[in-house]
Amino acid sequence: MQCMFIDIVGYVAAALTTLAFVPQALTSWRTRDLSGVSLPMYSIFTAGVAMWLAYGVMLGSWPIIIANSVTLALSGAVLVLKVMHR
Amino acid sequence: MQCMFIDIVGYVAAALTTLAFVPQALTSWRTRDLSGVSLPMYSIFTAGVAMWLAYGVMLGSWPIIIANSVTLALSGAVLVLKVMHR
Repeated sequence: MQCMFIDIVGYVAAALTTLAFVPQALTSWRTRDLSGVSLPMYSIFTAGVAMWLAYGVMLGSWPIIIANSVTLALSGAVLVLKVMHR
Repeated sequence: MQCMFIDIVGYVAAALTTLAFVPQALTSWRTRDLSGVSLPMYSIFTAGVAMWLAYGVMLGSWPIIIANSVTLALSGAVLVLKVMHR
């Protein structure tokens, strides 16, 4: 029971830090206003998420693979928009 | 050896996704330009990182605690700046 609670906190944490990029990607797409968005941040972050994905693949961990595939698509989209509209 | 390589990929991934928020926090602090930064993103993301920190504390995992304490401070700073300057 204790363990299950800890697992649930972990899954909710993973869902929040993944889905957080949905409103950023949508706002950036709609407004094309990327002025306050840091290019180094999205460059480093997208590279880091790609490495998390590689880590998940090497471990054969589906939760890591799924969460980071979604985040990679979203942060990659923000990065491309930033490069196009700076 | 195979395992050590996988561990290194994981540590580099964690370092990149944590440190990525340094340039965003610095840029937001210096320019006070938060116009393209999504408030819902930083609200959801900061809540998610706080839950990752709670997860690390419950597991007694220092890598999770340290990485998420740093990210919480940085994304929390961007969130506060966004609320102050929207």
